[in-house]
Amino acid sequence: MKEAKKKIENLGGKILEDIEKKVNPNIDIPIRTLSNIVYDSKTRMLTLGGKSAKRFLFHTGHAKKFMQTMLISAFCKDLIDQNIHTSLRDLFYALKRTLPNSNENTFDEQSESNPIVVDLEVMLNILREQLHLNADIRGRVVGNVVISDRGDTVDLSKLGSGGWAIPSNIEDIKFKKVNADYILVIEKNAAFERLHEDKFWQKHKCILITTQGQPARGTRRVIQRLAIEFDLPVYVFTDLDAYGLYIYSVIKYGSIGLAHVSDRLGTTNAKFLGLTMDDVDNFNLKNFTIKAEEVDTKRAQEMLKYKWFQKPEWQKLLKSLISRKIKAELESLSGRGLKFVTETYLPTKIKNKDFLD
Amino acid sequence: MKEAKKKIENLGGKILEDIEKKVNPNIDIPIRTLSNIVYDSKTRMLTLGGKSAKRFLFHTGHAKKFMQTMLISAFCKDLIDQNIHTSLRDLFYALKRTLPNSNENTFDEQSESNPIVVDLEVMLNILREQLHLNADIRGRVVGNVVISDRGDTVDLSKLGSGGWAIPSNIEDIKFKKVNADYILVIEKNAAFERLHEDKFWQKHKCILITTQGQPARGTRRVIQRLAIEFDLPVYVFTDLDAYGLYIYSVIKYGSIGLAHVSDRLGTTNAKFLGLTMDDVDNFNLKNFTIKAEEVDTKRAQEMLKYKWFQKPEWQKLLKSLISRKIKAELESLSGRGLKFVTETYLPTKIKNKDFLD
Repeated sequence: MKEAKKKIENLGGKILEDIEKKVNPNIDIPIRTLSNIVYDSKTRMLTLGGKSAKRFLFHTGHAKKFMQTMLISAFCKDLIDQNIHTSLRDLFYALKRTLPNSNENTFDEQSESNPIVVDLEVMLNILREQLHLNADIRGRVVGNVVISDRGDTVDLSKLGSGGWAIPSNIEDIKFKKVNADYILVIEKNAAFERLHEDKFWQKHKCILITTQGQPARGTRRVIQRLAIEFDLPVYVFTDLDAYGLYIYSVIKYGSIGLAHVSDRLGTTNAKFLGLTMDDVDNFNLKNFTIKAEEVDTKRAQEMLKYKWFQKPEWQKLLKSLISRKIKAELESLSGRGLKFVTETYLPTKIKNKDFLD
Repeated sequence: MKEAKKKIENLGGKILEDIEKKVNPNIDIPIRTLSNIVYDSKTRMLTLGGKSAKRFLFHTGHAKKFMQTMLISAFCKDLIDQNIHTSLRDLFYALKRTLPNSNENTFDEQSESNPIVVDLEVMLNILREQLHLNADIRGRVVGNVVISDRGDTVDLSKLGSGGWAIPSNIEDIKFKKVNADYILVIEKNAAFERLHEDKFWQKHKCILITTQGQPARGTRRVIQRLAIEFDLPVYVFTDLDAYGLYIYSVIKYGSIGLAHVSDRLGTTNAKFLGLTMDDVDNFNLKNFTIKAEEVDTKRAQEMLKYKWFQKPEWQKLLKSLISRKIKAELESLSGRGLKFVTETYLPTKIKNKDFLD
C-alpha cells in the first residue's frame, strides 16, 4: 500500500478510536511559524522544531478547521485510490460546497484549503505530491539520463533543443540510467539553452538543469534525487544578487516556507559555483554589471543574519554586494563573447574547484 | 542560404549602394504604433497598415539608432553564420560597449536594443527566431506527433507525465508524423495534466497543448504550424474572463504588440470552445463562479470595442461578463467532480460543435 494512503488511514483510525473512547477527537499538528523553524547545523538543513498544537473537534475555534482537515484527508485518500492527480485549485473547487441546512461553506477561499494541505504534509510527514496534489511546473533537464514515467522510457539526451520538461509530480518517476560526473543547476533558461546548444553536457559529462528562477518543488526534488541516488556533486550557477544566492540557499538548505520538507527537497551537498564578486573582478565583467536596487541591498542585509550564511566567505560576498551596490546577471558573461561561458568561465571554475559551500 | 541571412545581406548591400551613390544612407521601417495597426477583415488578422518612416545615417535624431540597427544586423548575421542562438538579454550584453574616444555607449539599456530587433523583424519581414534570437519558453504538448529537432527524433506520445516542452525557437523543428483529428489548446497546465492523466488525447485522437497563460511565441508558432501543415481544427479552452478570452484572441488573430508577425503567429481557424456563460448555466457551474474584479470588467469593456469581437455572440458573451460580474476558471469544472471535464464537459461540447468563432 502507498505510504501516504496508510498514513491517512491511520489518522482516520486514530479519530475513530477517540470517538469510541469518548475522548474529544483531536489531531496533533507541528507548528510551522518562524518561531519553530530552526537551522540544524548537523544535517545543515532548515527544519521544524519540536513545538506542536492540538486541533480538537469539539472546540468553537477549531471545529471548522477540524472538519476541513477531515474533508481534505478523505479527498486525498480518494485521489490515491483512484490514482488521480490534481492541483490545489481543483481540490478547492471539488470540496467547496454549502453545508446542508446552513449558510456555512466548507471553504470560502483557496486560502483556507491550502494551509490544511500543508498541515497534512507536516502531520503525516509526507510530501503533498504523495497525496496526489501537483505543484506548479517549471524547470528543464538535459543529459545522459534515462527515466521511466507512466510506462514511457524517456532518454533525456535525445529530446532535441527543449530538453525534458520536469513534471509537477516526480514521485513515481524512476531514474533508470545516469551517466554523468556532476549536475550543473542554472538559474536561467537562456544560459541553459546556450550550454545545451554548445553541447556542454556531452563534452563535460554532466547533467544540466535549469530552474527558470526560484526552483519549483518538482525541480528541487529532481536535483535531490539525482544527487543522492547517483552520488553526484551539484554546482549551482545563478546571477550575482541576493535573489540568485537565495536560489542556491533554497536548493541546498530548503526554504523557510517549506522547512517541514527540507529533507525531501534540499540537497545538502550543493555548492555555489557563481557568479561571485571575485568572478566579476577575475573575468573582467565590471563593465557588464548593473546597479543594485534598494530591494536587493535590503535582501542581502537580511541574508547576512541567516545562520546558514555565517561562514566568512559568504559574509564577505554578501557584504560586497551591499558595499559595491552592483549585481551581475548570467547573461553578463555574453559581454565577453557568446561562447565565453562554455569555453572559458565554466571550465575554469570547475577545474579549479572554485566553489562556495 | 537561410532567408534571414540573405535579407540582412541585402540590407547591407543597399546601404553600401547608398554610400557609393553618395546618398544619405537610409532604411525604411514600417510604423507599428496603434495608428498603423489594422484588423484585416479578409485575412481576419491584425496587421500593419502601409505607413513607414525612413531612418537616416546623417541625421542628428537618427544617427544613433541607425548605428544600433547596423550593429544588431551584423550581430544576427554572425549568429546565423556560426549557428548560435541567444536571447535578447545576451544580445544586449554582447553589444554593449563604450565607443572609442567618447563617453557614448552603443546601448545603455536593453530597452534600446529590444525595439531595434522588432524594427528588423518588421523591416525584413522575418521572425526574430529566424535571426537566432530566442524568446521566453512556456507551453507543453502531448499527442501522436513525431518531431525532428537537432538530429533527435522525439515521439510526443511517449514522454511520460510531463509532455513535450516547447522550445524557445521552433523554426528548425520538423513535424514528421501527426495522427490527430484536432488540437485542443488549454490555458492552464493543471487542466492539461488532468486531461493527459485521463488519456484524453488517446481516447479522442487529438493533440493537447497547454499555453500556461498567455501563449509564448513558440507556442503560438507550434499551434499555427500544426494547424496549417496538417489541416487540423483548433479548439481553445480557457477561463471565462476577459483575460481568457484574450488568450483565444491572441492565438487566432495575433496580438497588438506583435501585429507585424500575425501571419506567422496567428491561427485563423481557431475556435473558442469555452468556458462560456452558457456553460455556466448549462453545466450547473454557478456555485463555482467567482466575483469579477474591477480590472476584469474594464478589460471586457475595452474588448467590446475591438473590431474582431463585433459578432453578436461575442458581444453577448462580453456583455454578460460585464453585467453578471462573475468569472469562472477551468478548475471550476472540478466542482462537478474531477473527471467531469474529460468525461462530460469536453465530449459534449465537441460533439455538439458548441464553439464560438
